[in-house]
Amino acid sequence: MSMHSPRVLIGPEVEPWLRDAVIDGDGILVDDHREAEAIVWRGSDHRRLADLLAEAPDVSWIQLGAAGTDAWAASGLFHDGRVWTSAKGAYSEAVGEHALALTLALLRDLPRFAGAARWLPKSGRMLFDRTVLVLGSEGGIGQELIRLLTPFRVNILSGGRGGISDATTGAPLTLEAALGRADVVVIATALTSETRGLFGPAQFAAMQRTAVLVNIARGAVVDTDALVQALDSGEIAAAALDVTDPEPLPAGHPLWSLENCLVTPHTANTPEMLKPQLARRITENLRRFAAGAPLLGVVDAAKGY
Amino acid sequence: MSMHSPRVLIGPEVEPWLRDAVIDGDGILVDDHREAEAIVWRGSDHRRLADLLAEAPDVSWIQLGAAGTDAWAASGLFHDGRVWTSAKGAYSEAVGEHALALTLALLRDLPRFAGAARWLPKSGRMLFDRTVLVLGSEGGIGQELIRLLTPFRVNILSGGRGGISDATTGAPLTLEAALGRADVVVIATALTSETRGLFGPAQFAAMQRTAVLVNIARGAVVDTDALVQALDSGEIAAAALDVTDPEPLPAGHPLWSLENCLVTPHTANTPEMLKPQLARRITENLRRFAAGAPLLGVVDAAKGY
Repeated sequence: MSMHSPRVLIGPEVEPWLRDAVIDGDGILVDDHREAEAIVWRGSDHRRLADLLAEAPDVSWIQLGAAGTDAWAASGLFHDGRVWTSAKGAYSEAVGEHALALTLALLRDLPRFAGAARWLPKSGRMLFDRTVLVLGSEGGIGQELIRLLTPFRVNILSGGRGGISDATTGAPLTLEAALGRADVVVIATALTSETRGLFGPAQFAAMQRTAVLVNIARGAVVDTDALVQALDSGEIAAAALDVTDPEPLPAGHPLWSLENCLVTPHTANTPEMLKPQLARRITENLRRFAAGAPLLGVVDAAKGY
Repeated sequence: MSMHSPRVLIGPEVEPWLRDAVIDGDGILVDDHREAEAIVWRGSDHRRLADLLAEAPDVSWIQLGAAGTDAWAASGLFHDGRVWTSAKGAYSEAVGEHALALTLALLRDLPRFAGAARWLPKSGRMLFDRTVLVLGSEGGIGQELIRLLTPFRVNILSGGRGGISDATTGAPLTLEAALGRADVVVIATALTSETRGLFGPAQFAAMQRTAVLVNIARGAVVDTDALVQALDSGEIAAAALDVTDPEPLPAGHPLWSLENCLVTPHTANTPEMLKPQLARRITENLRRFAAGAPLLGVVDAAKGY
């Protein structure tokens, strides 16, 4: 790689704030993909990008706008020999914050109070001193959530590719054992063939009846029918979902009518939150690209994220 | 004061966990108030306690169960020459946590999503990097809230008896100027003659239209009619109230029907949360009393808290 200003195509649309981010990173904007060395691509239209790449031999790097790349991994594009970077890690503050907001809302019974038009009997639990299982604890979001949880003196159980362990003692745990100990279970893992459907009837059965589930990762990590059953029967106390399967969750779906389920419409990282964070990532990666330095958020094609 | 085990009356009821706390603190339980040196008193029945105290010349110290003592201050009992301690500071973690839960819920639009039965358009704001005015920042709850807010990189404006200042620069601010800068205003102050009705039409007018108000202190710090007006007209964005005036908030009150108002029924510190925290405080204060050491939570009769 050279120190010259890289020629960058932005797609599928040249949004002004993306253009500014590229210029801030000393990139030169090009309209013709055949002249591009790098592509900044937002959205999920991988077919259109694949068509461009077929005619763009000089493109050695593609920056995607999303942090979760399961849909891209399924396309097979990551195996094309180019460097692909996602925005993983760039949205950790936004999503980690939302995970904490949902956790506190469930423990403090806020959905129930929000729906009431009268002074209900007191209820709610403290987050302080509880045990929190963070699945995906090695990722940016998991790390950020753990940082935000630190002042609450919680016991963290960390789950990642290397298995699950008690963050305090280092002792390894099976998923079943971790689920049995956790007061709060937060799903912050990438969606892969290993995590798809990870939460089914057996996992809900292993959880405490007082435990709550928070999913800010991907809906398909959870078997939705099994979750409905677990919430309806009281096998777990409550769930808060920023992601669902199917997504968007259709009107009339049973999850909407469960009092112990809070659904937010994938707002952990809204477009307004996303833009400044992604702009910073693009600018930083362009500078690194020009300098031949390691890029942030490089996708491991074998893992799919 | 002597090192002997103090003779303690518990009232109005001898709840088992209170008895355990007194015994843990090496207190000797007595049934007859005329034999007592100290009284541990829960609840708000100050007339009944006044009657006991009239016949209890040896009682030099009264431990109350509440952190907020505005109702007791109004009774005049604090001026009786005895040492009065409240539970101020003992519930800081519970109440500070609830204040953060309410703040995040408002910024993340959780009340709106909780009430929906369909996938709404995305909305919500991050707490990160916002400006938070904490009124009552010198108290235990204010201090704890500021600690919990620290990982969010917020700008704190601190308000106490000495006035308001920017916590970063130390620069003094008028209330009006602070309200104009704050994205989030948290009321964590004691209810006194100075703070009663502190928030009225002028204060809501001084706030940003995007700002949110959180009250976990006492309802009467806020002029409720003015708040209804400010929420209804969009003068402020939203409010979350754990305390109200009147309290309990009666069915049919306009606050119940405002979409941008979340009311929790004084659950920042539920009885279940309160018990272990108060027990620790009682035990600690009994040891200090026996040793002649300064007690925790001593009420300043002139201030009323």
